[in-house]
Amino acid sequence: MKKAYMDNAASTPLLPEVRKAMLPYLGENYGNPSSLHDWGDEAREAVDAARGQLAALIGAAPEEIIFTGSGSESNNMAVKGLALAQQQKGKHIVVSAIEHFSVLHSARTLEKWGFEVSEVPVDQHGTVNPDDVRKKIRKDTVLVSIMHASGEVGTIQPISEIARLTREKGIPFHTDAIATAGTIPVSIKDLGVDALSLAGNQFYGPKGIGALWVRKGLRLIPLIDGGIQEGGRRAGTENVPAIVGLGKAAELARAQIPSRMKHLVPLRDRLLRELPGSIPNVVVTGHPENCLPGHASFCVEFIEGEAMLMMLNAKGVAVSSGSACTSRALKASHVLLAMGLSHELAQGSILLTLGIANKKEDIDYLLEVMPPIVDRLRQMSPLYAKTGRTVKKGGS
Amino acid sequence: MKKAYMDNAASTPLLPEVRKAMLPYLGENYGNPSSLHDWGDEAREAVDAARGQLAALIGAAPEEIIFTGSGSESNNMAVKGLALAQQQKGKHIVVSAIEHFSVLHSARTLEKWGFEVSEVPVDQHGTVNPDDVRKKIRKDTVLVSIMHASGEVGTIQPISEIARLTREKGIPFHTDAIATAGTIPVSIKDLGVDALSLAGNQFYGPKGIGALWVRKGLRLIPLIDGGIQEGGRRAGTENVPAIVGLGKAAELARAQIPSRMKHLVPLRDRLLRELPGSIPNVVVTGHPENCLPGHASFCVEFIEGEAMLMMLNAKGVAVSSGSACTSRALKASHVLLAMGLSHELAQGSILLTLGIANKKEDIDYLLEVMPPIVDRLRQMSPLYAKTGRTVKKGGS
Repeated sequence: MKKAYMDNAASTPLLPEVRKAMLPYLGENYGNPSSLHDWGDEAREAVDAARGQLAALIGAAPEEIIFTGSGSESNNMAVKGLALAQQQKGKHIVVSAIEHFSVLHSARTLEKWGFEVSEVPVDQHGTVNPDDVRKKIRKDTVLVSIMHASGEVGTIQPISEIARLTREKGIPFHTDAIATAGTIPVSIKDLGVDALSLAGNQFYGPKGIGALWVRKGLRLIPLIDGGIQEGGRRAGTENVPAIVGLGKAAELARAQIPSRMKHLVPLRDRLLRELPGSIPNVVVTGHPENCLPGHASFCVEFIEGEAMLMMLNAKGVAVSSGSACTSRALKASHVLLAMGLSHELAQGSILLTLGIANKKEDIDYLLEVMPPIVDRLRQMSPLYAKTGRTVKKGGS
Repeated sequence: MKKAYMDNAASTPLLPEVRKAMLPYLGENYGNPSSLHDWGDEAREAVDAARGQLAALIGAAPEEIIFTGSGSESNNMAVKGLALAQQQKGKHIVVSAIEHFSVLHSARTLEKWGFEVSEVPVDQHGTVNPDDVRKKIRKDTVLVSIMHASGEVGTIQPISEIARLTREKGIPFHTDAIATAGTIPVSIKDLGVDALSLAGNQFYGPKGIGALWVRKGLRLIPLIDGGIQEGGRRAGTENVPAIVGLGKAAELARAQIPSRMKHLVPLRDRLLRELPGSIPNVVVTGHPENCLPGHASFCVEFIEGEAMLMMLNAKGVAVSSGSACTSRALKASHVLLAMGLSHELAQGSILLTLGIANKKEDIDYLLEVMPPIVDRLRQMSPLYAKTGRTVKKGGS
């Protein structure tokens, strides 16, 4: 059977070059970077080199990079760590309604610790309006956290405009760049933010490794106390092979982002163009222009996204119905609901995220197998029967 | 030049079988375990299998295992997470004076949040007296955390005796088993504890992976909020290759612990016997009987441990002067100071930790190169000259 993996937002395949860079650190180079001998030196030099490679990807200084165990850890560390470090100044933070749960649930935890959280709404494309951020900022606001782009609908936010506001007011601004770093050009200077999260498995690097960049001089309360690793900001023996892999993935991304985008955008655009043409009652959910290059997100009326993705899986196609982190919770996406979609329509969510391994043939195959699946599901849907609605050919 | 790695407490080499088990998850099996398709199923099944292997190592139920990014994270999660979950009942915790900094500094953080921390002392061998734990327990004690064995001096604690006390009083008892799990038999049933930390790189498994076992029904506040991974107790995409590696390392350890101990103990005993014979004024710091099988820890009077380990490194020998997590801080070990050693003597700390790759020839080589190094360092030491002390042959 043909196989087509179109769930790169859940996790990307590891590039062979990345794997090759990691292998010595799963073999003969087994030292602990903190050890004061040759074995330790070798490991420490590898970690330092990777820190440089990663810093270069976003235009940061190497010593400002903190390696973490995942993007979720980076987000937790940023939201809790920056807010707690500033709590003498105030106990109010601002987030958007469509943040990843690692940001939103960190904000919930801060609420239990006496913080207040304001949520900025989004429009129908999932875009935050900087004016809405301005309205939420108060005298006691000590942190703003707005994602660079949604991993679900792919919409890219006007981060540099929001950063102008926060800089004016002297409020630290964190952005979750997990969906963007390594995928589109990300420059901390251009964005103007003070902290930024990213994750290795989003750009052909390893799982189990993320990073948090924090502007020099900005205080942060660590999440993991103990050793002196990562400048005393994250204890624990460094995950040397994964750090080396992340560094290599960053180096490759830095060189290849333009060519990767050139490959992805036409494939994705064809999906956005042809899927609504071949399946009736389909709504494109992402932003028509400001969208990640490999993201094509839809809602298909009168069906359950999970049923659709199971049937696509039976045909060898991997897609998702939203964030992988919550896919087993089988709830309507909070992102789609915040964008004003009805619960019913949000249940029909389907997210196709293309990666550099995808080819024209994968798109052909998807466009071939998906319409009959949708047809079959609709025949089975009590909702669809009840409406008695006629299906109009040619999009929503 | 001959090479002898005797710093297995800092990090152990990865076993070839472990590496082999990991490789598919750094290659073709790149799915996210949370994804609802074949790629995800494959990854999830691998994580589940590893959870079973790890649970079997300590006699736990698989669903009680939480995978983390390091032993330090496990300790932070246990100390902060268990204490915070119980804070309605009281705000007092008990730890030993020789805990790893990931426990001690977590306790310091709890102090900032209004908790009180009592430290239990140790005797000259680094052993906690259960009666001293009893004396520290109060009505408002909500957590006791005492390590199973010290990674620095190797002393094994009377955990099951302490557990009898905590069970009597209904107080959750966490043990940091990072130095013991996978190295000596560790059974949660025999120990009688309620939570236990371990780390992959301590028993020939990968770096970047640890685990926390928590008894079913015991509440825990997560450190990393967000997704539904690890039963909602630790968000973030699972580090599939490292989890698979940890599972394999656990399976191998379970089968091989007796033969590994049989290999290590005679080599270590020879060090303990012959080093004090060939170097004057050497103090063995670990417990004479209740000690980890590969641990040989000494203090050498009138020298600096760091200088000694640099010179041993120049001869191709890797040792440490204490915990790798603090080795770059160049401070006297809090463990040795708690055992009653003077600052001066503690500065001469040297820790040899043998692993399964060490052979008789490594011991021969160390016994050959170390005495002249000590001699040379002592000639250079102003302290030694000042005392005018004569060196007595045959140990301290």
